[in-house]
Amino acid sequence: MTTQTPSGQDGTTDAFPMTPVNRVRRAPARGHYDRATIHAILDAALLCHIAYIIDGRPYCTPTSFWREGDHLYWHGSSASRMVRAQAQGIPLCLTVTHLDALVMARSGFHHSVNYRSAMIFGQAHIVEDPTEKHALMERLIDRIYPGRSKLIRPPNAAEFKATAMMRMEIETASAKIRDTHVADDEEDYATVPAWSALYPITQVLGEASPCPRQSPDMRCPPEMADFQPGARLDVVMGQTYRRTFGS
Amino acid sequence: MTTQTPSGQDGTTDAFPMTPVNRVRRAPARGHYDRATIHAILDAALLCHIAYIIDGRPYCTPTSFWREGDHLYWHGSSASRMVRAQAQGIPLCLTVTHLDALVMARSGFHHSVNYRSAMIFGQAHIVEDPTEKHALMERLIDRIYPGRSKLIRPPNAAEFKATAMMRMEIETASAKIRDTHVADDEEDYATVPAWSALYPITQVLGEASPCPRQSPDMRCPPEMADFQPGARLDVVMGQTYRRTFGS
Repeated sequence: MTTQTPSGQDGTTDAFPMTPVNRVRRAPARGHYDRATIHAILDAALLCHIAYIIDGRPYCTPTSFWREGDHLYWHGSSASRMVRAQAQGIPLCLTVTHLDALVMARSGFHHSVNYRSAMIFGQAHIVEDPTEKHALMERLIDRIYPGRSKLIRPPNAAEFKATAMMRMEIETASAKIRDTHVADDEEDYATVPAWSALYPITQVLGEASPCPRQSPDMRCPPEMADFQPGARLDVVMGQTYRRTFGS
Repeated sequence: MTTQTPSGQDGTTDAFPMTPVNRVRRAPARGHYDRATIHAILDAALLCHIAYIIDGRPYCTPTSFWREGDHLYWHGSSASRMVRAQAQGIPLCLTVTHLDALVMARSGFHHSVNYRSAMIFGQAHIVEDPTEKHALMERLIDRIYPGRSKLIRPPNAAEFKATAMMRMEIETASAKIRDTHVADDEEDYATVPAWSALYPITQVLGEASPCPRQSPDMRCPPEMADFQPGARLDVVMGQTYRRTFGS
């Protein structure tokens, strides 16, 4: 343990350095820079939003992604404008947001939401090596559905060519978390007679709807054990992540 | 009804023109440009992600927002880097994504998710007029909690000054929707014996947790009738939107 380098809130040095790019300026007490916190937010997510620039204009595109070490991966159509732009090594910002609660306070100013978000900065590149690309196309499936790439038809030549796998090294990153209850100005607690409460929000799975063209004899395999009706998607994504990549 | 101008998929002209900026290039059959479709996606959402550029770098920030006509509104800290950057009239892309289902196919290529997303392009400005700003600060609350701005303590001078209200006219926009079941290559239905299914995903409210410092006699007011445990957030946001702004 040392504090010689910029550190996460846990006091370890396994943190991203704080720079003008990633420093959390608003509500800095909500900011986190340690890998453990940032990884947990990323690994509980299916979707991110990626900001990138084409011809001087910003675009914000939702896509699925996953993390391996200090790298993030996603895929796109090889012909897509997003992939072609990102492949040039332009700076990107990849953001993940989990919305956890609505927070109703006694003043508008203290209304809030609880959330866990992470902003990741870096540059993306297309993974060109065919062996590595093939392995990534398997993990694109297995990250969500552990072991599934071995159960389905593998990519054919046309699909392999049409798919681009993108890799981005995390250059710097920050997380921002609010996870507290109503926090009002002291005088408002006694003087404002307004219903004040926190409403939890979760993203949950429903009951599976089998493909109408599959045999009624087909059974849901053990790989899908985490995908129960009512299960939280962020919890399931964390579970499937650990099944595929370990803890 | 005319088709002289670029039209929405419903054949009406109440649509945003298709330009190189907003045209949906990948899976163009999923693209929509009509206001009715785009507005429904926006008005069912609490959060968006906004892409913007500072010093040549893209940033992607999650924030709450709402729509009035062809304008979008959000707020920020007057001192924030995001607000100061956006206030200069730089181009923005504001994206909303509702994740509706996981779709497990018989090949990796046809794995997908169901979603409703909208990308909105424009430039933001700070609303400087105090009367208009005050009204927007009320609607920032009322859009989520109808009528609530009259029940809480109004903003004081410091809060009013510290809050920036941003307005962006929608210059152009598009929506992209996938809402179908598993769609595999014809030969794979018979030859790939893999469990294939759609798993619905919803974002739902939990039971309210009252502020620990409020009187146990405080009752949840009628304005909160839509906020029932298990209610879908997108449905509730649509309901509260209509309560505040009409249909």
